[in-house]
Amino acid sequence: MKAIVVNQPGGVEQLQFRDFPKPKLQVGELLIKVKASAINRSDIIAREGKSNYLKTPILGIEVSGEVVEAASGTNIEVGTRVMGLVNGGGYAEYVVLPADRAIKIPDSLSFEEGAAIPEVFLTAYQTLFWLGELTHQDTVLIHAGGSGVGTAAIQLAKQMTQAKIITTAGSQDKLDFCRSLGADICINYKEQSFEEEVLKSTNNQGVDVILDFIGASYWERNLKSLKTDGRWIMIGILGGAEVNKMNIIELLQKRVQLKATLLTPRSDEYKKELTKEFVQKAMPLFNQNKMKAVVDQIFRFEDIQNAHKRMEANKNLGKIIIRVNK
Amino acid sequence: MKAIVVNQPGGVEQLQFRDFPKPKLQVGELLIKVKASAINRSDIIAREGKSNYLKTPILGIEVSGEVVEAASGTNIEVGTRVMGLVNGGGYAEYVVLPADRAIKIPDSLSFEEGAAIPEVFLTAYQTLFWLGELTHQDTVLIHAGGSGVGTAAIQLAKQMTQAKIITTAGSQDKLDFCRSLGADICINYKEQSFEEEVLKSTNNQGVDVILDFIGASYWERNLKSLKTDGRWIMIGILGGAEVNKMNIIELLQKRVQLKATLLTPRSDEYKKELTKEFVQKAMPLFNQNKMKAVVDQIFRFEDIQNAHKRMEANKNLGKIIIRVNK
Repeated sequence: MKAIVVNQPGGVEQLQFRDFPKPKLQVGELLIKVKASAINRSDIIAREGKSNYLKTPILGIEVSGEVVEAASGTNIEVGTRVMGLVNGGGYAEYVVLPADRAIKIPDSLSFEEGAAIPEVFLTAYQTLFWLGELTHQDTVLIHAGGSGVGTAAIQLAKQMTQAKIITTAGSQDKLDFCRSLGADICINYKEQSFEEEVLKSTNNQGVDVILDFIGASYWERNLKSLKTDGRWIMIGILGGAEVNKMNIIELLQKRVQLKATLLTPRSDEYKKELTKEFVQKAMPLFNQNKMKAVVDQIFRFEDIQNAHKRMEANKNLGKIIIRVNK
Repeated sequence: MKAIVVNQPGGVEQLQFRDFPKPKLQVGELLIKVKASAINRSDIIAREGKSNYLKTPILGIEVSGEVVEAASGTNIEVGTRVMGLVNGGGYAEYVVLPADRAIKIPDSLSFEEGAAIPEVFLTAYQTLFWLGELTHQDTVLIHAGGSGVGTAAIQLAKQMTQAKIITTAGSQDKLDFCRSLGADICINYKEQSFEEEVLKSTNNQGVDVILDFIGASYWERNLKSLKTDGRWIMIGILGGAEVNKMNIIELLQKRVQLKATLLTPRSDEYKKELTKEFVQKAMPLFNQNKMKAVVDQIFRFEDIQNAHKRMEANKNLGKIIIRVNK
């Protein structure tokens, strides 16, 4: 089968096709004929050689496709349309998916939409609810509202809580889209001081939960935006990793709960539990057309380099998809 | 009645006696004839003018004493021996104590021992269990093992869980005492590199929970000592507040949960709930002589300045107490 590997750590030119045997199944696993795979920032970090979570040389952490083989200990039929998080190997014609992480794709969704769901919706679910403990009375600040996780988080917060949703993005297009998904207050971070807008719209109290993809460059401003006893969920470093000065007194006075998280390196057990709860509580909202997969652009398998380029340029609104098997 | 106020922000010489009328009660409150009050680091910070949580000019956040008057909405009899957290005013002959925060003093304990319990045991309980989510399988690192909160935390962790307890202190006396309270591994931070010892004794995994009273000067070393998915509970800044360089990638890779907390500025409701759970789950251990109040030294009311000096010199092993009414 054809699959994409990294020749050596570096730029998009290092993404190369190579032939592999079809993967073999173990108990509890499904073999998926991959219809679509999605690009994640962690793929880029892996391509650059800055992380090594995956045991396979094949990139890709989520797919959609058809079950073509099911090992013992699974109860999903061959032919079922599924999506889910894989332990690497998603940029390939076939991949192994643990059955307890397979999510049935609603009939109303295409494979491309299916591939756009697992990573961002599971991450958004985990950060909003498991770590952020978002309640109906809360206000949440979702940075990068136009990103994959951002668009998923806005929808989940809107559909599953009565929380007030504040989001930031860098263009009017993105902000309009965020509003259409349910964001209450949309801030253009290029034109406005987001922390001032946050304080203005929360009676100077700040927000209960922040989803922070930005990191260092927003450190002080996020701290100002956070309410006492707030949960600050750190999931990215688009704005750098090094904070040059941090004052612990400020953390103590606000009784900050700073929770850093990544989904990919977590255990199989964790992903299974997260998937299970997500399927139960959030998947019905797709069936009822209350939530949607946000697909930015679909690339052919062969165009993987352009797909990576698009993400690196932060041009995407929602998920960048590659179509694998027809 | 006689009470201690701060003349103007500054050193111990600013602690002065002044006459006040006895406080008046509102619904749900008890008037306590104060037998003993305890010194807390937050009293020193308040004396220096660096915090202003309290609405009364009288210092002191915990007392033991006798109920001499009970307003409506209380169900504790006059004459009962109680201890508890007050909203300031504890360095005085009489003080108001909300009835839902009054803890009956076991017969086996003196008033001086009673005054040594509320703040440190409630703080230790809150940080170990509510924020630290300590389990039987966990390992906990308790810094400043000889301090008031340190000695309370070692006992609570030992008596209420099967967690492995690692502690640090700066003298052999303190370490021996920590061991007698139940600490499994006792590290002299002046002679050993605590993070190396922690890694050595946890198979290089690090600990699940850190109680951090130290702050900036231990930042990197605490981060090294923490296990993936660990909870790092920040409750003090004995080692300074300013961290000069912090790398968010390290937080992400370990999926650190950094939770900063203070007890005194929290709401009446929070203190009520914390007290209630503590009374139910931990107080029986005092009755069974499995836990003890750790009294360092008892000063006369008039000797308040020396009591503050002793804490500022970090000489105490356990709580510094002032005896108020006989």
